[in-house]
Amino acid sequence: MMRTNLVRSRLAAGESVVNAWLSIGSSYSAEGVGHSGVHSVTVDLQHGMFGFSEALHMMQAISATPAVPMVRVPSLDPAQIMHLLDAGAYGVICPMISTPEEAAALVSACRYPPHGSRSFGPSRGLLYGGADYVAHSNETVMAIPMIETAQAVERIDEILDVEGIDLLYLGPNDMAFAIEGHVRFPRPASEIAMARVLERAQAKGVPVGIFCADAKEAALRLEQGYALVTPGNDFAHLTRSISGAVRDLLDRDETAEKAPATAGHGY
Amino acid sequence: MMRTNLVRSRLAAGESVVNAWLSIGSSYSAEGVGHSGVHSVTVDLQHGMFGFSEALHMMQAISATPAVPMVRVPSLDPAQIMHLLDAGAYGVICPMISTPEEAAALVSACRYPPHGSRSFGPSRGLLYGGADYVAHSNETVMAIPMIETAQAVERIDEILDVEGIDLLYLGPNDMAFAIEGHVRFPRPASEIAMARVLERAQAKGVPVGIFCADAKEAALRLEQGYALVTPGNDFAHLTRSISGAVRDLLDRDETAEKAPATAGHGY
Amino acid sequence: MMRTNLVRSRLAAGESVVNAWLSIGSSYSAEGVGHSGVHSVTVDLQHGMFGFSEALHMMQAISATPAVPMVRVPSLDPAQIMHLLDAGAYGVICPMISTPEEAAALVSACRYPPHGSRSFGPSRGLLYGGADYVAHSNETVMAIPMIETAQAVERIDEILDVEGIDLLYLGPNDMAFAIEGHVRFPRPASEIAMARVLERAQAKGVPVGIFCADAKEAALRLEQGYALVTPGNDFAHLTRSISGAVRDLLDRDETAEKAPATAGHGY
Amino acid sequence: MMRTNLVRSRLAAGESVVNAWLSIGSSYSAEGVGHSGVHSVTVDLQHGMFGFSEALHMMQAISATPAVPMVRVPSLDPAQIMHLLDAGAYGVICPMISTPEEAAALVSACRYPPHGSRSFGPSRGLLYGGADYVAHSNETVMAIPMIETAQAVERIDEILDVEGIDLLYLGPNDMAFAIEGHVRFPRPASEIAMARVLERAQAKGVPVGIFCADAKEAALRLEQGYALVTPGNDFAHLTRSISGAVRDLLDRDETAEKAPATAGHGY
Amino acid sequence: MMRTNLVRSRLAAGESVVNAWLSIGSSYSAEGVGHSGVHSVTVDLQHGMFGFSEALHMMQAISATPAVPMVRVPSLDPAQIMHLLDAGAYGVICPMISTPEEAAALVSACRYPPHGSRSFGPSRGLLYGGADYVAHSNETVMAIPMIETAQAVERIDEILDVEGIDLLYLGPNDMAFAIEGHVRFPRPASEIAMARVLERAQAKGVPVGIFCADAKEAALRLEQGYALVTPGNDFAHLTRSISGAVRDLLDRDETAEKAPATAGHGY
Amino acid sequence: MMRTNLVRSRLAAGESVVNAWLSIGSSYSAEGVGHSGVHSVTVDLQHGMFGFSEALHMMQAISATPAVPMVRVPSLDPAQIMHLLDAGAYGVICPMISTPEEAAALVSACRYPPHGSRSFGPSRGLLYGGADYVAHSNETVMAIPMIETAQAVERIDEILDVEGIDLLYLGPNDMAFAIEGHVRFPRPASEIAMARVLERAQAKGVPVGIFCADAKEAALRLEQGYALVTPGNDFAHLTRSISGAVRDLLDRDETAEKAPATAGHGY
Repeated sequence: MMRTNLVRSRLAAGESVVNAWLSIGSSYSAEGVGHSGVHSVTVDLQHGMFGFSEALHMMQAISATPAVPMVRVPSLDPAQIMHLLDAGAYGVICPMISTPEEAAALVSACRYPPHGSRSFGPSRGLLYGGADYVAHSNETVMAIPMIETAQAVERIDEILDVEGIDLLYLGPNDMAFAIEGHVRFPRPASEIAMARVLERAQAKGVPVGIFCADAKEAALRLEQGYALVTPGNDFAHLTRSISGAVRDLLDRDETAEKAPATAGHGY
Repeated sequence: MMRTNLVRSRLAAGESVVNAWLSIGSSYSAEGVGHSGVHSVTVDLQHGMFGFSEALHMMQAISATPAVPMVRVPSLDPAQIMHLLDAGAYGVICPMISTPEEAAALVSACRYPPHGSRSFGPSRGLLYGGADYVAHSNETVMAIPMIETAQAVERIDEILDVEGIDLLYLGPNDMAFAIEGHVRFPRPASEIAMARVLERAQAKGVPVGIFCADAKEAALRLEQGYALVTPGNDFAHLTRSISGAVRDLLDRDETAEKAPATAGHGY
Repeated sequence: MMRTNLVRSRLAAGESVVNAWLSIGSSYSAEGVGHSGVHSVTVDLQHGMFGFSEALHMMQAISATPAVPMVRVPSLDPAQIMHLLDAGAYGVICPMISTPEEAAALVSACRYPPHGSRSFGPSRGLLYGGADYVAHSNETVMAIPMIETAQAVERIDEILDVEGIDLLYLGPNDMAFAIEGHVRFPRPASEIAMARVLERAQAKGVPVGIFCADAKEAALRLEQGYALVTPGNDFAHLTRSISGAVRDLLDRDETAEKAPATAGHGY
Repeated sequence: MMRTNLVRSRLAAGESVVNAWLSIGSSYSAEGVGHSGVHSVTVDLQHGMFGFSEALHMMQAISATPAVPMVRVPSLDPAQIMHLLDAGAYGVICPMISTPEEAAALVSACRYPPHGSRSFGPSRGLLYGGADYVAHSNETVMAIPMIETAQAVERIDEILDVEGIDLLYLGPNDMAFAIEGHVRFPRPASEIAMARVLERAQAKGVPVGIFCADAKEAALRLEQGYALVTPGNDFAHLTRSISGAVRDLLDRDETAEKAPATAGHGY
Repeated sequence: MMRTNLVRSRLAAGESVVNAWLSIGSSYSAEGVGHSGVHSVTVDLQHGMFGFSEALHMMQAISATPAVPMVRVPSLDPAQIMHLLDAGAYGVICPMISTPEEAAALVSACRYPPHGSRSFGPSRGLLYGGADYVAHSNETVMAIPMIETAQAVERIDEILDVEGIDLLYLGPNDMAFAIEGHVRFPRPASEIAMARVLERAQAKGVPVGIFCADAKEAALRLEQGYALVTPGNDFAHLTRSISGAVRDLLDRDETAEKAPATAGHGY
Repeated sequence: MMRTNLVRSRLAAGESVVNAWLSIGSSYSAEGVGHSGVHSVTVDLQHGMFGFSEALHMMQAISATPAVPMVRVPSLDPAQIMHLLDAGAYGVICPMISTPEEAAALVSACRYPPHGSRSFGPSRGLLYGGADYVAHSNETVMAIPMIETAQAVERIDEILDVEGIDLLYLGPNDMAFAIEGHVRFPRPASEIAMARVLERAQAKGVPVGIFCADAKEAALRLEQGYALVTPGNDFAHLTRSISGAVRDLLDRDETAEKAPATAGHGY
């Protein structure tokens, strides 16, 4: 039987999911993160600093851990989505989905006929999922639109009605850009928009995930009802931890001018 | 004029040096670490999970930051040492130097004639160091033996008498293997051995650096008189930080069996 | 004079073409396959497990063999098609061409003005094809639409009327998805559809190629009148051959549960 | 403060800019070129023989030199443009911009809201530009449409009226294809078209750059009023220089048949 | 508990082991081979066409399959052996071991103190083996000398007496070179030499493995008493299978001159 | 029949050889250089900025040109020499050969038994050389010691007496370091030493090659009797050509401080 998608089964069981996020193009760090206790690891091809080859190696490395390999794609490009599914992704997070048509196009790209338009060529999917991958991938692989535009918020009910949406994923920074016009805190209007999305999704039984700056925000989001949280990306964890160590070792005055560029809220 | 070696000048001025350590083969994370406030970044080709090509990219990325690029080589192989110097390394940390002859061989590999046997072919050294690289590299590039064997401790005075040793670097884990026969704590005998090396080096005016598990140990080592400290490697910072976030988010019971493999003391 | 396209000249002469198919991103195996006696080798960027860089290395390696380098692109993306032509591809197989407009767009992407819209920048084309590449590539490089949708079958006459179509290529698995709604055997309706495409193309003097599961199917397709056959991809050849060796060496009972995921019909 | 864009400031001051062009996918040669005295280095992802990963390494290497890293993208694909900006590009040259709508789409892809639609995720931009990258990138990063089609020439005034166009860049070879129908010299009509574009841009205060075959043409273009010139790409410089050395060493007769494929006018 | 070494446990139980051999530097084909039913997969860094980086990716991919990852190193270079162990190899096949001193040096490189001289820095070993890797790797990782010289045959008893030899591995081609002076068949003297090695090893309770041209030879070797067999490498399986398909499709006469270079007996 | 070694046959015929030298790790530039009219291209793994993987891709690319692929290895490491021969090198230039024993070890590493100790595993040699590679490589592949130490000059007659030396190659910069103690011009003593080596080699019928700064020096060396010349490496050609273009375009005053680091005499 095809390998179970742990993210899907946990969400179905009402259990929360902790998801890691990779922007460093290394299969070694990917494997380490996969062993960190997270339920899933998302390989970010939109803002991550790598291309397909590294993503393949990272997904292979994640496949040697208990975590589920997922991807964020750069855009709603069906050929690229299919390529990453062929490479073994068990979930596709797609940015900037604003309309039900776009949501349906995402679902279609993730499903073989007759439920979608995915091209046959399962490649590594067969290796990760198993010999019956083609028969069962439609109910295993997850289609996950990112909700991060004003239009998406307005049309959230229509988007939620698209058959095959397995999870919504909120991008708070792009949402802030869209709703506030900037990414500075506080962001009252975009918080309200996100709360509305969460409420509507819950009403329709669709779980919602969200990118968080860190574990503290992630804990808050879980309390708010989000089902999946990403407590910051790998680069932020790495550089914050090292910067913190340096600060502990040096006088603050000395390091002030070299303050890490990455001390922000992540993305 | 050739670009100054900040590590060398700080040590000469009696200022301490915070050094980062890279085992992840990514130029992106390398660049991020180079901006973290550290004075130098060591690209570890011995236990790091990459080869020459990634090391080159990592050193190029570090060169775009305020930090000094250094390498740890896998062994006392002059051809490999020269290759990494050609790639722009400003310091070579060489493991398992146990005799004055080995220390002299390391120095020789790092110096052009008549002070050494380095082969001409400065390649990227010219780009990082400047057009007068060949004329000045002998007094810029640092030769750094690792002291981590029983024999090295015994012969420390002879090793320190080798002309051209710019810094000693202690590897506490291999030292523990050598002196205690294991790497478990406590390690009383190897601590005594390291204290002896530090004392003899200070007596002869040679600064000493040391690999540490984390910032806490690094702070202690600075107090003990070490001039350069490495507060854990990139992989440990990354995976500890993410594992910590996961533990904060999930019940400990649940995550117990998935406890990160990397919770140890690093290396 | 520009290097001849052996695939084009064989087809023009009514000779059949055996084409290999690469999904493994290795220039070494690509070169080995290029020496296997095939007339052409197709680097598959749609379902193959690699990106542009590996494809470049693979085409360079194929260029050192008697075989003609071709590509399958992921989609009808003119910029990507042009990039691969610049990298030396002598034929472009493009999936999911369903309308004469799409077929014309494919041809246009493969031809310099005034016969198309390809951007100037021949790069490696000059090295593989020769100094007169720009002058002669329009009549050398092949534009090859894949016929694998119901709409394409319906509109096959219009597609065949598009000037500049050098070869049609049938994708039986996606055709099965499109016509049967699944990929299981038998596939009577999609066989009829493919036979119709073959018949119409032959009537209009356009040769037709087809992906086959293996040499046995390829032999049958040649008998049916297909001009170019692909007897399975590299991954299938490799894993079937090793799996067969393992089965010969172990008791079947023992290996049953580890039956190779790739024992299917390829793609 | 965010790192200044030297290209932008020189152009604003009425100083000319010499730009290098990279089609070889090597971070080492990129770094060497960055130290050659040029003001900027453009990483060409359209006709260059590499993909995203090499482009990242090349931009990191350029960041260690005085030159400004820029990219030419393969097409007007917002996701790809954003990805390269995230990787640290300070300018985006986009081919085949023919209408004000396309020009506006390019600008939008290069600007964060509210002035554009760039997605948040600055990644390496933060490292190269500085911690305040997001706040200042809109006025730092340059949007540079290529003008190389007949339609663009016709609609040049409308294109120039698009807010946010920082520089036009002319592609003489594709312009020749568009206007002359071929790339052979002489090209009287396309020269007239380019002169018209230059005149209109100067009238509206927008500087114009141009790709040149070599330094000789570049000098001429500077005299004509172009503000930025690219004196041939890296591959042409390399192969012409080596071919010239070979010709100096061998009898011409002997080398005639091996005349370098790259002796043409570049692109 | 540290992950079990299936090769070691099968050999201890008297069960035979089928081992695959990789000379193609692809993590995708490596993963496919790992799913083919073999018990172990050896990544060949001696004659395989790749370096450390690809080997790392290949071992990560193998780690996602039921097969045990092993390596063949290029030579008895302790630093390189340790690096590959750090990368997760569970067995090290080392060529050209001719003396008990060399065999002991191999064992020492594979064992942490006090049983050897391996340097601390387990890296990916921790991820593949588990958190207790350092404590248990000495009894898990296998040290495997290749016996393929005349001297090794002569001194086989001494070599077998070296503590820590887990398996001998015969290289019939180099053995033929050593004993016959050539690699042509028949090879009577080297067969006798190998039979002697097998007999002595069995007498001392050390299992013996052997490289075979194909499954047919492997079956024969199992009957002769070899405990582990390698039925040809990946490149041979791939190119033989494709060449066979081509021959089936074309007239032999036509393909004669293009007969695959790899039709030999492998290595 | 095995593919002829053009360098060997030209030298045997008394014809001079122009050799290119690659330090840029790009298969694209390697292929371009291979088409520049040179007779051979040497992939420099000693001072070149790449490792084995890039060298493989470069040799594959050179194999698609008329030029003969050769390598310079980092040191007299038989395993590495054999690996590069397996990758298709038709000549091995080995630095720092100072004694007849070292020269003999180099020859031995390049020859199969009974004439040497090369390990069986021809891999890509079979693809480039042909199916009879193993039978004929001993008389095809060239062993080329570099003469660049004082000891080598002293013992040149003994070195020349080693059977199997196909060519000597002089490294003038390391020779200057060895003889003059520096690399500044003039270098009267090292010129005398090189003249002596040339004279002795000619007396014994061994051709001599030499690395030159540029074509001008190469022409002089050919007149002096050198049989093979290398007119500068790829990086020098590239950066000198671009720097020259920049100087032609900008006022010298402006560019003075940015004078290219690579304006020196190469290596």
